[in-house]
Amino acid sequence: MPKYRAVLQYAGGNYSGWQVQKDRPTVQGTLNQALARVTRQKDVSWVGAGRTDAGVHARGQCAHFRLREAADPKRLIKALNGVLPWDIRVHSLRRASPRFHARRDALKKRYEYRIHHGPVLPPFRHGWVYHSYYRLDVERFRQAAKLVKGTWDFSGFAASSSSVKTHTRSVFLSRLRREGSLLRYQIEADGFLQHMVRNIVGTLLEIGRGRRPVEDVLRILASRNRRNAGPTAQPQGLYLVKVHYP
Amino acid sequence: MPKYRAVLQYAGGNYSGWQVQKDRPTVQGTLNQALARVTRQKDVSWVGAGRTDAGVHARGQCAHFRLREAADPKRLIKALNGVLPWDIRVHSLRRASPRFHARRDALKKRYEYRIHHGPVLPPFRHGWVYHSYYRLDVERFRQAAKLVKGTWDFSGFAASSSSVKTHTRSVFLSRLRREGSLLRYQIEADGFLQHMVRNIVGTLLEIGRGRRPVEDVLRILASRNRRNAGPTAQPQGLYLVKVHYP
Repeated sequence: MPKYRAVLQYAGGNYSGWQVQKDRPTVQGTLNQALARVTRQKDVSWVGAGRTDAGVHARGQCAHFRLREAADPKRLIKALNGVLPWDIRVHSLRRASPRFHARRDALKKRYEYRIHHGPVLPPFRHGWVYHSYYRLDVERFRQAAKLVKGTWDFSGFAASSSSVKTHTRSVFLSRLRREGSLLRYQIEADGFLQHMVRNIVGTLLEIGRGRRPVEDVLRILASRNRRNAGPTAQPQGLYLVKVHYP
Repeated sequence: MPKYRAVLQYAGGNYSGWQVQKDRPTVQGTLNQALARVTRQKDVSWVGAGRTDAGVHARGQCAHFRLREAADPKRLIKALNGVLPWDIRVHSLRRASPRFHARRDALKKRYEYRIHHGPVLPPFRHGWVYHSYYRLDVERFRQAAKLVKGTWDFSGFAASSSSVKTHTRSVFLSRLRREGSLLRYQIEADGFLQHMVRNIVGTLLEIGRGRRPVEDVLRILASRNRRNAGPTAQPQGLYLVKVHYP
């Protein structure tokens, strides 16, 4: 059965996350329906590299699917974008090796969390950023962000419900970029636990506001206890930016 | 009566333009209601520098209003943004001279028209740009844009219904900037006729698509006949960016 891989972009605001759910609109469910409609095959299913939460966006989600009969990728991408709602787009699509697996083959992923830093939120950023009404000390935020880099047990920053074998992940990049009133926190790792990025950002925001010392990042990592970290930051600032493959 | 001036940002998608209309939501009408509610004064009215059309956005609209009693600008801006919908924001607000007039005192205005140039429109640009499915020759677009610069009778690019004394306007800046798949056409002039920017853009798009020669800009200007120009470009790509005062 021919396999295809795609890069997807979506706005998460109208969806209960990536993964298919009963009676709730999800990105995967919407994509499955679109693919079934376009190919007239019933049991088609997309497999995504990352399971983004409700409200989280993607600029570069990767996914694969199999078809019973081969299709022309150029026609397929046009047909899919023709039936998909505006907030889900197939950015690119190509034939994949039969062994390719979007989730298992991913070497690392990059997420970005966008924060508007200023008293008034421009309408153009509504729904696309987290709005920090509070004044942030950007230098403190930046220093704390750097401390996240490394191989750690991230239990302190994972959703308590998370039930994976190991909580150890390697973070290769954790930095803050500033573009005027837009703060872009970027993090790249070989894997992410549930709510990990949003819990890190919730903590970094508290550090930036001066409510916690910079070193709290290390204390939370060492404690491996979610209760020590800050609140889970809102989903509308978060983007799955890129998935790296060998 | 104390006077105030403000810089406004708004997303035009939900409004029938700037100017107050009966039974239709407009930016000015929404601002008048918010000001009346916040100040508890009934006959308050905003005067804008430019009357943006239905669907057109503003990043830097300027406006003034008068109050019976003086108010603290810092409190007023917070109160206004507290009652205004998310798509209209008072970006800044300060006391103005009694002689200041947002429309009459404006020396020049800058508009920008944003075009997504590529086969797939990213969800993040939906409603904020015009999507050109067609391949554009960016160099041709740029050359044609340059020809708009100068002092001309712009009747050829004005809405036929337009009924102003003179159709002569001075365009100080008319250029195309490219940022990857985003094309930003910027135009600055001492005044704009109705639909002028969108009619210019509609023509430049046809030139970029190779449907018209570059020199058509000059032919349309010389003809002073709207029928010779291209179609009016869609409003969702247009932004009032800045208003200059002495």
